[in-house]
Amino acid sequence: MPNIAVLGCGRIGRMHAANVAAHPRAALAGVFDVHRTAADEVAGTHGVPSFESAEAVLASRDVDAILIATSTSTHADFIEQAVAAGRPILCEKPIDLSLDRVNRCAAAIGETRLPIMLGFVRRFDPGHRATRSAIQAGDIGDLHQVVITSRDPGMAPAAYIEVSGGIFRDMTIHDFDMARFMLGEEPITVSATGSRLVDPALMTRCGDYDTVTVVLTTASGKQCIINNSRQAAYGYDQRVEALGTRGMVISENRKPHQATRFSAEFTSRGVPYLNFFIERYAEAFNAEIGAFVDAVESGTAPEVGFEDGRLALVLAEAALKSVAEGRTIRISEIG
Amino acid sequence: MPNIAVLGCGRIGRMHAANVAAHPRAALAGVFDVHRTAADEVAGTHGVPSFESAEAVLASRDVDAILIATSTSTHADFIEQAVAAGRPILCEKPIDLSLDRVNRCAAAIGETRLPIMLGFVRRFDPGHRATRSAIQAGDIGDLHQVVITSRDPGMAPAAYIEVSGGIFRDMTIHDFDMARFMLGEEPITVSATGSRLVDPALMTRCGDYDTVTVVLTTASGKQCIINNSRQAAYGYDQRVEALGTRGMVISENRKPHQATRFSAEFTSRGVPYLNFFIERYAEAFNAEIGAFVDAVESGTAPEVGFEDGRLALVLAEAALKSVAEGRTIRISEIG
Amino acid sequence: MPNIAVLGCGRIGRMHAANVAAHPRAALAGVFDVHRTAADEVAGTHGVPSFESAEAVLASRDVDAILIATSTSTHADFIEQAVAAGRPILCEKPIDLSLDRVNRCAAAIGETRLPIMLGFVRRFDPGHRATRSAIQAGDIGDLHQVVITSRDPGMAPAAYIEVSGGIFRDMTIHDFDMARFMLGEEPITVSATGSRLVDPALMTRCGDYDTVTVVLTTASGKQCIINNSRQAAYGYDQRVEALGTRGMVISENRKPHQATRFSAEFTSRGVPYLNFFIERYAEAFNAEIGAFVDAVESGTAPEVGFEDGRLALVLAEAALKSVAEGRTIRISEIG
Amino acid sequence: MPNIAVLGCGRIGRMHAANVAAHPRAALAGVFDVHRTAADEVAGTHGVPSFESAEAVLASRDVDAILIATSTSTHADFIEQAVAAGRPILCEKPIDLSLDRVNRCAAAIGETRLPIMLGFVRRFDPGHRATRSAIQAGDIGDLHQVVITSRDPGMAPAAYIEVSGGIFRDMTIHDFDMARFMLGEEPITVSATGSRLVDPALMTRCGDYDTVTVVLTTASGKQCIINNSRQAAYGYDQRVEALGTRGMVISENRKPHQATRFSAEFTSRGVPYLNFFIERYAEAFNAEIGAFVDAVESGTAPEVGFEDGRLALVLAEAALKSVAEGRTIRISEIG
Repeated sequence: MPNIAVLGCGRIGRMHAANVAAHPRAALAGVFDVHRTAADEVAGTHGVPSFESAEAVLASRDVDAILIATSTSTHADFIEQAVAAGRPILCEKPIDLSLDRVNRCAAAIGETRLPIMLGFVRRFDPGHRATRSAIQAGDIGDLHQVVITSRDPGMAPAAYIEVSGGIFRDMTIHDFDMARFMLGEEPITVSATGSRLVDPALMTRCGDYDTVTVVLTTASGKQCIINNSRQAAYGYDQRVEALGTRGMVISENRKPHQATRFSAEFTSRGVPYLNFFIERYAEAFNAEIGAFVDAVESGTAPEVGFEDGRLALVLAEAALKSVAEGRTIRISEIG
Repeated sequence: MPNIAVLGCGRIGRMHAANVAAHPRAALAGVFDVHRTAADEVAGTHGVPSFESAEAVLASRDVDAILIATSTSTHADFIEQAVAAGRPILCEKPIDLSLDRVNRCAAAIGETRLPIMLGFVRRFDPGHRATRSAIQAGDIGDLHQVVITSRDPGMAPAAYIEVSGGIFRDMTIHDFDMARFMLGEEPITVSATGSRLVDPALMTRCGDYDTVTVVLTTASGKQCIINNSRQAAYGYDQRVEALGTRGMVISENRKPHQATRFSAEFTSRGVPYLNFFIERYAEAFNAEIGAFVDAVESGTAPEVGFEDGRLALVLAEAALKSVAEGRTIRISEIG
Repeated sequence: MPNIAVLGCGRIGRMHAANVAAHPRAALAGVFDVHRTAADEVAGTHGVPSFESAEAVLASRDVDAILIATSTSTHADFIEQAVAAGRPILCEKPIDLSLDRVNRCAAAIGETRLPIMLGFVRRFDPGHRATRSAIQAGDIGDLHQVVITSRDPGMAPAAYIEVSGGIFRDMTIHDFDMARFMLGEEPITVSATGSRLVDPALMTRCGDYDTVTVVLTTASGKQCIINNSRQAAYGYDQRVEALGTRGMVISENRKPHQATRFSAEFTSRGVPYLNFFIERYAEAFNAEIGAFVDAVESGTAPEVGFEDGRLALVLAEAALKSVAEGRTIRISEIG
Repeated sequence: MPNIAVLGCGRIGRMHAANVAAHPRAALAGVFDVHRTAADEVAGTHGVPSFESAEAVLASRDVDAILIATSTSTHADFIEQAVAAGRPILCEKPIDLSLDRVNRCAAAIGETRLPIMLGFVRRFDPGHRATRSAIQAGDIGDLHQVVITSRDPGMAPAAYIEVSGGIFRDMTIHDFDMARFMLGEEPITVSATGSRLVDPALMTRCGDYDTVTVVLTTASGKQCIINNSRQAAYGYDQRVEALGTRGMVISENRKPHQATRFSAEFTSRGVPYLNFFIERYAEAFNAEIGAFVDAVESGTAPEVGFEDGRLALVLAEAALKSVAEGRTIRISEIG
């Protein structure tokens, strides 16, 4: 049962710490955050050490593996340090906003055989996973089209958006990984369209988009359509649809319960969807910890690794270039 | 292509006349109503004769068959007259409110081989029919329970309720027939419960109930549960559920279209159900005409006949007795 | 944060022990089972004491409250002992199979102000709870009918059935409580129908039924229809429907995920329902622990208490009598 | 009540003739087809004249309006002739495969005030129409994204594909019109992606695609995503989704009935969708006739006219150019 230390005690770090602590096959070794009070609070809740520094975490004999949930700009550094310290890693996405930095990180960690897992949590969602299993089992024949609908319930704060790296690197990155997960072939072209509709002023100021569509194709012609919006009034919208020669599978949204109302004005009115990612992907975050424990215990490569993180970023770069140039970009054009 | 005359030009008679007129395999021979202006109007719309009397209809060489959609109290008389005149009959339910009168009618028409079809239209609904077909095909194994939910959108006018014969003879009668259609075995016991909730004053005055539950059992122990209400604010509610050893089939309600809304307050909000029977069972009323034409042309017994009408009334009598005596009634106790 | 000891380490006891251990507001004080190895195993998993006897549990200063998950025949004894020891109780249903024993237990514990909570877990299901909240909020106007569909996925082992006390005391008991929860008024009449369809030989041998329908009415005429089957091939079926003057609410079944398939033969094919009660009511079992902790910490009466357990058994007795005598039973006829 | 003559007695012409004949507000004046036996058969069924030539139709005093359902290459000619003859027109889409020919036709008919209606039947579908009404009523706030899923049940015969003008002019043309109907603003850019997956050999031979995605944007940045496939094993897939600032509306597919099955392997299994356009859009084809009658009787412009047909073809041209050049095309680049 590995002792896992969590770096970062923000919203997602706290969630991971609680999941590790409650996990039947893992233990929480301690936490660290540059905001010491945040770390102390989480440590107190779970009765584990609050480390003074990331170095102290990596130096501790009681830490078998680390989970990186700090701010994005620190991910690559911590990955390099953890590899140097011989600790398996579960790192939140993205590895870095800069593809160049990611490539240097890849060079730095070289041929390490340490498990390095990327936090593309949606791969562990029961519905999305069942969809992929159906594809792999041949239930829908040969895959032709994947449609990913992925919309946040509402615009993040301006302060967040400003440093997010833009919608493709911050939000669509999950969908790029989902596209690769479903397609079973690497995309070779990217065509993207961006609009400023939710908060045009903020988007213009940041050179960003809040409403985007991306079309990916593979060498065999398979298509994946991603549509994103920073604002879905009806809640966090996370759907995946796969069309093949013999049928279709749709992974639909989830509601907190199945009570529906009927009145003179409407029928079958359901409650809003689970909101936000911590609720929607609660089971997935738990399964992710389990998959990481598997990798740590077996010493084998995790299902979703460093290169998956890098390839998703390559797709984000291509999408940016596509919007800027108004043309379809071949992946081979990207570093 | 039989020429069918319609007796009765009220709401349901007008609908039948239009259906017969538009039917590719039938022709409208003319109409009759004691309210001559009503008949003239319908006749004018379709360019057919408005007969002076029912006798004139039955005497006409241009009339091959008759459809009885007059008030209930005249049904048995017209059946007897039409049989005497050698005309196949499609008669709206119920045959009569009095089981005694129905039995006398049965005696009067004797062993006639003329097709006499009862207007239990729900048997022709595509969803209900698919449910019964699934049962008969063994899709759900041996049938154990049938649950019929049947609720009107709103209370009928007091003037109608007063002469309706009560909820069991007027409204549940359709469900009694549906129960027999689904069960595939005759019910042998009836247990009924009646409440006065929608309009207690009216119900008390009429000695009637507006909210009832009936439980039927067959000799082999199959159960059918019927629940009725005179008022479903969300619209005409018509569901049938069948449970068997290997599964279940549910025939769900239908909406005019499948556009659904999503907002901050709700998800998947559908529009109200089709309302009322003329809209909800539009396809069924059409299919009913087709089935009648089949019977007329082949001279064979229709799928749902006089005895089906009589047996539904027997169940209604048993339900009334059950409510009155607070006990389960055996069908053999009813005349 | 109360230390809760769990009595009984069978399937449901083990689940409760795990829930208490993982609960953020409760701690597992230890476990006991007459099968010592079962208790030791559960104790080992959670690193808590395995008590030698129930007496030892109640004598322990480290035990603030107890959760009774032993076999039914011991419930009343343990309730009396725990009350004598001054420990709040969460007891699995039913209190006892004998109404007489329950009444004696009630007398024995007298006017105790100790929280005694009954494990009618379905009250804590998010969907059922939202349904009741909608009723109480007036969303559907005045309540007229409640329809409870409650079917087990498959027949329990004969050994279990033989000592279960029969379907009304063992299975319908949950639905009797749900009926009371939804109706908001006490039922005053019970009419029940029982069939032997799933395993006629076993049912005949035990004098039991495997397929039953129960109709309850309240003084104001509200109706509740319960339909039960010991076998639903498509999984554990747990639905609640409430009809009122202004609309309807339905608490529908839940599936493990929302991936659905479409093919040449079908559309929208979902995966089977969550199966069995431990999966279906996982959130409810957790919320139940939370509600118990609330009662223990505040010292107030839990939402569902001893008298609720007793009244559900009264309804079961009435149902048995109704089937036996073929008539509607008034609750006032039952002890 | 206008007398409408139908030109063309193929599958869709026969359907239109039957709809006109059965329509309560229209009469069938006769039919014409270059295959005289086809025309005679349809004329016989409805008891109307089978005209010798299109000229004879337009010369007949008994013909108030014409419905053009002949092969595409004749549409523009018949439009010009009917305008010359002063007869209102309902013409099946597309006007012509050549934008140049359409522009010449526009010039030829000039400023005519005769009602010329284009057969974009999907605008009359109750669900799609309710979706647009919700948008227009502001139910979803400001519109941001429209997603149109439009897939045929199976590949048309090679002989048809070869002369179809390609998927964008033949199939997507309906979706281009639907996009304009929903967006409420003209698209100004088109980005299209085409794949050959269903029948690569045929597609390569024809220089066509069977699986396409098109992204349209308007001046204000609204996006519309269209995804098409020539093959959906589960049936004709016709969905429209509209996302706005305050919510979403989805117009879902329709099934012939709502009976669903449940078994040990699945839940809520529905029957396949209505198949093909004649069944799926039956109500819409009828409503289209009604809208045409309105235009004929009032002499005003129909809701969907010649220019709508031309603009849909412009979008098809832009999509073709986008696939060929791998870039986003501005509508202003197209003639």
